[in-house]
Amino acid sequence: MTSSHGDQTPKLLRALAGEAFDHPPVWFMRQAGRSLPEYRELRSRAKDFIAFCHDPVMAAEATLQPMRRFPLDAAIVFADILLIPRALGQEVWFEAGEGPRLGPLPEIAALADEIEASTGRLADIGETLSRVRAELEPDRALIGFAGAPWTVATYMLEGRGSDRTRARAYAYAHPEKLDALLDVLVESTARYLVMQANSGAQALKLFESWAEGLSEDVFERIVIRPHAAIVEKVRAAGVTVPFIGFPRGAGAQVLNYAEATPVEGVALDTQATAQLGRTLQAQGKTIQGALDNLLLREGGAALDARVEQLLEQWSAGPWIFNLGHGVLPDTPIEHIARVIARVTGR
Amino acid sequence: MTSSHGDQTPKLLRALAGEAFDHPPVWFMRQAGRSLPEYRELRSRAKDFIAFCHDPVMAAEATLQPMRRFPLDAAIVFADILLIPRALGQEVWFEAGEGPRLGPLPEIAALADEIEASTGRLADIGETLSRVRAELEPDRALIGFAGAPWTVATYMLEGRGSDRTRARAYAYAHPEKLDALLDVLVESTARYLVMQANSGAQALKLFESWAEGLSEDVFERIVIRPHAAIVEKVRAAGVTVPFIGFPRGAGAQVLNYAEATPVEGVALDTQATAQLGRTLQAQGKTIQGALDNLLLREGGAALDARVEQLLEQWSAGPWIFNLGHGVLPDTPIEHIARVIARVTGR
Repeated sequence: MTSSHGDQTPKLLRALAGEAFDHPPVWFMRQAGRSLPEYRELRSRAKDFIAFCHDPVMAAEATLQPMRRFPLDAAIVFADILLIPRALGQEVWFEAGEGPRLGPLPEIAALADEIEASTGRLADIGETLSRVRAELEPDRALIGFAGAPWTVATYMLEGRGSDRTRARAYAYAHPEKLDALLDVLVESTARYLVMQANSGAQALKLFESWAEGLSEDVFERIVIRPHAAIVEKVRAAGVTVPFIGFPRGAGAQVLNYAEATPVEGVALDTQATAQLGRTLQAQGKTIQGALDNLLLREGGAALDARVEQLLEQWSAGPWIFNLGHGVLPDTPIEHIARVIARVTGR
Repeated sequence: MTSSHGDQTPKLLRALAGEAFDHPPVWFMRQAGRSLPEYRELRSRAKDFIAFCHDPVMAAEATLQPMRRFPLDAAIVFADILLIPRALGQEVWFEAGEGPRLGPLPEIAALADEIEASTGRLADIGETLSRVRAELEPDRALIGFAGAPWTVATYMLEGRGSDRTRARAYAYAHPEKLDALLDVLVESTARYLVMQANSGAQALKLFESWAEGLSEDVFERIVIRPHAAIVEKVRAAGVTVPFIGFPRGAGAQVLNYAEATPVEGVALDTQATAQLGRTLQAQGKTIQGALDNLLLREGGAALDARVEQLLEQWSAGPWIFNLGHGVLPDTPIEHIARVIARVTGR
């Protein structure tokens, strides 16, 4: 249905509760970050990326920068998916221009021993959320997030970003060890997300950035089961905020995911078909996505046309307008502003 | 239906005509190649990889090596998807251990001028097919193939294997130029495949190795349309052999592909769900796939169990047992033999 009442509940939360809009709520993955000159200036003041994420004043400012510039419906806390392994005791650092690097994987038992302490080591992110929530208008939502266990495990196993071949082979060669590692990540991630919700996050997103290339049986074991376990643990802790799951690259397995994972929202990647989104909507899921970030960067008539097509194909059901992947650093700000203006009608 | 009559028509062709089997036909992508010691010995005799592909005696031998070792239902001609751009006048070479390299992209008009001559420059591959067909038993099929236009174009545009970001951006920034390049590839590929069928190929496969990550509208334009055009052109030349299309990484877009492309077979990648395959079978397509090549390499009880699961989920409809991606060079031969023995029942 299309809503016209004057509810002050953030539109994003209304969409996650099943409401449809002519002008759906909109936010962009990586809306905070290098595409904004004010971010680049702010970031230059921190000694390294991890210190930046753990500084609640700077991280809150980074979270809020795009909210000041654009009429976005949601902010997402500025943080990184690799803060969890670091909090569990694995060394994590970022090489400039190359991305994350991780030290050797500790014994699983040693990681497990750190679960309880890890949440306290992530208290800075809770502080960031509290600061953002205090500044953000009441009709704009604040999203917390974590990397999903399999994706985080690929970095922990391979020590860096990669094509995940070694990690995928590990899933076959050492299934018990991988399951034990995923269990540690499920527990620590659930506690981290409970803390985020208690600090002001009104929705929680699980980023499974590397759901691609997995066999259906493996996907069930290392993606669906851990996601479902996290949601159940967070609910068991009394937290009722909605979840958005993002199994990026899962292809047709998104249908398996939506059926077996008790998330309110399913984020779709760039490949999502109109039909796939409508099927999920008909099954009671709110969808999110799926504009191509390369097209957002390119701009022009093709971008305008694709935005119209997406609005046409999905606005009849609950939908959050977003990209299929994060904003690229060299995306012109005027392209972002133009799409947001069209989607919001403002 | 399950067949029990004594037809000498190769099982692969019967499957592509819609027949189902308790023991489906089986072949493996990259069944000829570095996983076989006899291939490594043979390959060491050629000066470079392109010379090897263009030597009908050596290429026929490479094609036949796995047929001698295993009771496979089909051979696939030993060749490379980059022989086409080379025949059209773009420089192509292989760096040992690194993969293909291509020289600067010629003007589209210059490439177009070479279409007619390109087929003659690929006559060696026809000779390879004739030699293989003469040696192969009549109940075993011979498959010809080509790279699909978009995949070949990504190499032509980027000059090497890559994450295709530049090529995907090019699809937005220069749509007319890309369409013109795809048109050249459609025409040259159709002629190449006609020549292959006339030289003994009994089925033709289009490898779209890089169908992943494309927006639905772009996928329609640069994958579906060129595939459909190639099939139509080959049919218009009087060739009636069946086609297998392989849009690797297309996710849920496989359904769009199957609906709009007049191929008899649709090859599924590792991610394919049981339901996706059954949907395609119900729509009259023969499916092919989708064992994980990493699991084939790993072996053991998990491999046996997955083979049983695939046989269970798809054998009621027309299906060709295969991998979801090519055999990895370090795959133990006994794993390959074990799976083939189980699938064939021999």
